Amino acid sequence: MEHRPINLASDNTAGAHPEVMRALADAAATPAMPYGDDPWTARLQERAAAAFEHPLAIYPVGTGTAANALALATLVPSWGVVLCHHAAHVEEDECAAPEFYSGGAKLALMDGENGRISADSLAARLDFATPAPRVHRAQPAAVSITQSTESGTVYGLDEVRDISAVCRQHGLALHMDGARLANAVAALGCSPADITWRSGVDVLSLGATKNGALCAETVVFFDTGLCDEFEFRRKRGGHLFSKMRFASAQMVPWLEEGRWIRLAEHANRMAVELADGLAGIPGITLQFPVETNMIFLDLPVATSGALARAGCLFYSWGERDGRVSARLVTSFETTREDVAHVIDTARAG
Amino acid sequence: MEHRPINLASDNTAGAHPEVMRALADAAATPAMPYGDDPWTARLQERAAAAFEHPLAIYPVGTGTAANALALATLVPSWGVVLCHHAAHVEEDECAAPEFYSGGAKLALMDGENGRISADSLAARLDFATPAPRVHRAQPAAVSITQSTESGTVYGLDEVRDISAVCRQHGLALHMDGARLANAVAALGCSPADITWRSGVDVLSLGATKNGALCAETVVFFDTGLCDEFEFRRKRGGHLFSKMRFASAQMVPWLEEGRWIRLAEHANRMAVELADGLAGIPGITLQFPVETNMIFLDLPVATSGALARAGCLFYSWGERDGRVSARLVTSFETTREDVAHVIDTARAG
Amino acid sequence: MEHRPINLASDNTAGAHPEVMRALADAAATPAMPYGDDPWTARLQERAAAAFEHPLAIYPVGTGTAANALALATLVPSWGVVLCHHAAHVEEDECAAPEFYSGGAKLALMDGENGRISADSLAARLDFATPAPRVHRAQPAAVSITQSTESGTVYGLDEVRDISAVCRQHGLALHMDGARLANAVAALGCSPADITWRSGVDVLSLGATKNGALCAETVVFFDTGLCDEFEFRRKRGGHLFSKMRFASAQMVPWLEEGRWIRLAEHANRMAVELADGLAGIPGITLQFPVETNMIFLDLPVATSGALARAGCLFYSWGERDGRVSARLVTSFETTREDVAHVIDTARAG
Amino acid sequence: MEHRPINLASDNTAGAHPEVMRALADAAATPAMPYGDDPWTARLQERAAAAFEHPLAIYPVGTGTAANALALATLVPSWGVVLCHHAAHVEEDECAAPEFYSGGAKLALMDGENGRISADSLAARLDFATPAPRVHRAQPAAVSITQSTESGTVYGLDEVRDISAVCRQHGLALHMDGARLANAVAALGCSPADITWRSGVDVLSLGATKNGALCAETVVFFDTGLCDEFEFRRKRGGHLFSKMRFASAQMVPWLEEGRWIRLAEHANRMAVELADGLAGIPGITLQFPVETNMIFLDLPVATSGALARAGCLFYSWGERDGRVSARLVTSFETTREDVAHVIDTARAG
Repeated sequence: MEHRPINLASDNTAGAHPEVMRALADAAATPAMPYGDDPWTARLQERAAAAFEHPLAIYPVGTGTAANALALATLVPSWGVVLCHHAAHVEEDECAAPEFYSGGAKLALMDGENGRISADSLAARLDFATPAPRVHRAQPAAVSITQSTESGTVYGLDEVRDISAVCRQHGLALHMDGARLANAVAALGCSPADITWRSGVDVLSLGATKNGALCAETVVFFDTGLCDEFEFRRKRGGHLFSKMRFASAQMVPWLEEGRWIRLAEHANRMAVELADGLAGIPGITLQFPVETNMIFLDLPVATSGALARAGCLFYSWGERDGRVSARLVTSFETTREDVAHVIDTARAG
Repeated sequence: MEHRPINLASDNTAGAHPEVMRALADAAATPAMPYGDDPWTARLQERAAAAFEHPLAIYPVGTGTAANALALATLVPSWGVVLCHHAAHVEEDECAAPEFYSGGAKLALMDGENGRISADSLAARLDFATPAPRVHRAQPAAVSITQSTESGTVYGLDEVRDISAVCRQHGLALHMDGARLANAVAALGCSPADITWRSGVDVLSLGATKNGALCAETVVFFDTGLCDEFEFRRKRGGHLFSKMRFASAQMVPWLEEGRWIRLAEHANRMAVELADGLAGIPGITLQFPVETNMIFLDLPVATSGALARAGCLFYSWGERDGRVSARLVTSFETTREDVAHVIDTARAG
Repeated sequence: MEHRPINLASDNTAGAHPEVMRALADAAATPAMPYGDDPWTARLQERAAAAFEHPLAIYPVGTGTAANALALATLVPSWGVVLCHHAAHVEEDECAAPEFYSGGAKLALMDGENGRISADSLAARLDFATPAPRVHRAQPAAVSITQSTESGTVYGLDEVRDISAVCRQHGLALHMDGARLANAVAALGCSPADITWRSGVDVLSLGATKNGALCAETVVFFDTGLCDEFEFRRKRGGHLFSKMRFASAQMVPWLEEGRWIRLAEHANRMAVELADGLAGIPGITLQFPVETNMIFLDLPVATSGALARAGCLFYSWGERDGRVSARLVTSFETTREDVAHVIDTARAG
Repeated sequence: MEHRPINLASDNTAGAHPEVMRALADAAATPAMPYGDDPWTARLQERAAAAFEHPLAIYPVGTGTAANALALATLVPSWGVVLCHHAAHVEEDECAAPEFYSGGAKLALMDGENGRISADSLAARLDFATPAPRVHRAQPAAVSITQSTESGTVYGLDEVRDISAVCRQHGLALHMDGARLANAVAALGCSPADITWRSGVDVLSLGATKNGALCAETVVFFDTGLCDEFEFRRKRGGHLFSKMRFASAQMVPWLEEGRWIRLAEHANRMAVELADGLAGIPGITLQFPVETNMIFLDLPVATSGALARAGCLFYSWGERDGRVSARLVTSFETTREDVAHVIDTARAG
């Protein structure tokens, strides 16, 4: 019997959650003032403040790239340096958007196991000194960490706190790229507040697109002193939506009653079950611990082909000696049947 | 009897068209590959090429500001000059987004009646010469015209052709800000092709947001030679949507069977009827001919207050001697009853 | 008898003053630490503070364009607007350098007789208001005036004070482009302090190149709070000289004992004498009052040709009906014989 | 007996060569048209073309930072990547000027022994591929190598040719930062042509400031097709000098009859003799082979102190376990007596 196609290429291949669609339909049925002066955007502010247990300002923008680039451009001068992991989205997948938005700031790349930088290596990097007069160097101004990481792993509460302590010591701002923050929160079993402002995060990119929304990425300021500048930058980047309510409306049910965490929890669980099943198959090895909804593995080319033929979509690269690297990403829509089907196919292939 | 509130503050206060909502729901029900590699985006390309009777590339971005700024940055070098009307959206309402995206190009402002520049004044401006060596001056590189204009008027076919002739003569590109192109097409009774590429337009900002969509602004290249560069600029601006299908899906039914023109035709008709009614009231005078869906008028403060109390929302400014300026904008949702109610209220007020 | 060629094309065609050359030779004879950590740069700071009777920071940069662009970029955010006369050097002759250095700020152009803007028109412009929400517009952030102006005229003390009063009222910074400040000071008979910080100027571009130096343009901050940011911008612009002493050394004798003012006084006197002589010739008319060292006039093409044949170099443009516009600029090197020769030639021609 | 202070902090602490001063004095004695339309600039073009045995365009700018940043901004789009050694001046000492001038391009850092990158590691880096769609990544567009390097070493002819072969294969431009090119040419005993365009270099930053000039850094295009764009960029950066002849005049005698190479040869010889002497002292070890005029060494803190007390200036850093790192740079002015004095002092200290 043929199984429906299973798209594990990315969590952004999923559809939208029914509650999100319902909110959109509501917003479409009533006129409202533009540029955020509408009830849905007001409600979003409330819901977000409640979800994070802190006064904040939350700004929808077009993409996660826009959220990161706008956040960093607000945090650092054009001669600033943002320290981040070499595999960070801001470095690898944004076509130098942070450099563009900041007017030419630099990213300084750090190594670190499992997609994470450590407070120790950060401190070592910042303590490094040479005789160059101060103005000759771009100046460290912010650190950006990704939670959950590009490797599908998670920073623990202590790790974020230690990093933020080093940041404070050196006068750096701490940005968190939370395109998949919900998956990290679900994995840690902590509150959104714990892993963000309570751990010293100043500005957060918070994404819903990969986890139930159609297009809803935001920048969250826990310190609203930077908002005035940010609002000009957002407008100039073309990210101030006229019919803002359609962006805000997506986030309202998403943030309600922990729905965003529950959706991520499901995606995580599917990934762990899938990873467990695949890791038990001879010839398949995991590249990173599977802590959220992303699985990186090495597998035989033959197995990869069998999965593709069975309608399972995912990215693979770097064929060598009959093996490839692959990334499988689960989403809020992935089902237990999908997982079983992929495992069965891989075992047979 | 109380009338429901009538929002004439802008056409971007309207909701979304039912067909647009239906397309969104369809797109939400199936997984699809990200970044435009999906059936809705392919369909959008086809529909747009059919609607404009020309091969083209159409790119959804987040806002009209993004569309304009990205289009202009692709057309001019960072030492280029874009000539435009002093009331153009790119100058007045985009917080220097074109300057930001272009890396510091300049807008050169021109006067012109009813929100339009003329080919003659453009030629005169470009023929102007001084002894300054060439490299000392930013170089004229593009012209941007708004169709329909910020005054609610429309460039005739001949006017656009004459402007494009001057552009070609001086080696300038011609950009059209078509945030309300449908209203212009409806007003002119021409085809979309006639008023764009057939009249010499190189790149078009085409907006659906004000006319039935939730959030669907696009850049259209009739000459696809610039697309490669544009695609990098779009990505760096954070306007390459991961779940692109939700942007594309809005435009597909909108462009189908001339729906976009019909929706605009309705808005235009409502504006003309409203303007006719209001202009007949003593003390109210129109500032510009009402050719599309925007009405600019002078009216007594008392009348303005009466309208506000009756639930009619619109922008007014510049109170002097008991009178104010006001802008009323109709949309695809404005009804004949709305129009009658506003006229009645104004006459009574 | 043939006269040596007389170059009135610009004051930047002149050579260098012997005292400037002597200082350079001194600086070339001793090693010194780079980047301004040298005795000449220290002396420049002292001399400049003495000349302006105020604590200040003075920074040599490569050109007047760099001085203006770096000064303005330090004063305004990238969404800022600099108001200036439409004929200002920053608008007409810098190829959008201020837009480049500021990351896309705007210049807003003002009219004004004799190359000057007035406090009244500035106030009128700033008081203008429309219903656009704040963030949609680039924000007025600075005013830039040129002293002496591009028309060779001079702002009076009262005029600068009135402009600075409007600036303070609206929270704008006041920049003065003083590429020819010495000529203005000489013309006004005031002190450098009077026409700058005492009249409310915040940042000054001060040029020596046109008036005795080889290459010595500077930015002067009367409020040193902006210097930290400026120093990074200067370095990034490639204007932090390694052998800084050679820039500083030029300015030291120039600023000493009022030499800069005396050199400018001479150039002004030559211009006034030349203008008086020329204005007395039938068919020649002055375009602006000659208050410093620049003369703008209309003259017959035949006269222009006669001057050229006699070895007198100057810019002319816009031939019409047998007449042209021309600009003649005197310098510290122009002699009474030069002046007499030009007048005689024009009268004969 | 006390020795005069010996400044080995950098070659930019030296004075200017008498022939350079003589040329300046000549240029100061005659008026000339501005912006490069003068005989000295014409002569510079000729001398440079002769010195490099190739048609070329040479442009004086204010600093080496400006030369590098303007050259790279002309070679790469704002979404481009410049590959370079992690210790390159463009990365370490220019405060993100290349990022600023390019509008946000990236530098990708490479390791490599003795301050050099290798063709093999470059090829490996460029062959690396991942599944990210093309537009998501900044695009490799140029390679920048420093000759002589920041470690005082030299790329061999074969090394440059191999790197340029990889560049051509991948469609990348090759830039050479030749702030100390003369030292490399002298060390290699080759011609300037051999190590630049004949080895595949497209654009060269050529500096004279560290080797006899007061302030003369240039950009040299062997392919003049890029010059038009470059000239606009130079103007916008504020690096188009009005009295250009004073920059050009410095380079004319410098390039004549191989003077620039002879001056560098002397500096190199002094460095080698100094290094040989120091390396023979117990407790002093060289960090890199001394191939040009820079010496990097580890020495006891006590020795470092003794040198300082004896009036020898140099940079030192990173004290640990009684030892420091130090950099000693010789110049065209360093004498054999200076060398002997430093060695004697170190041996005694």
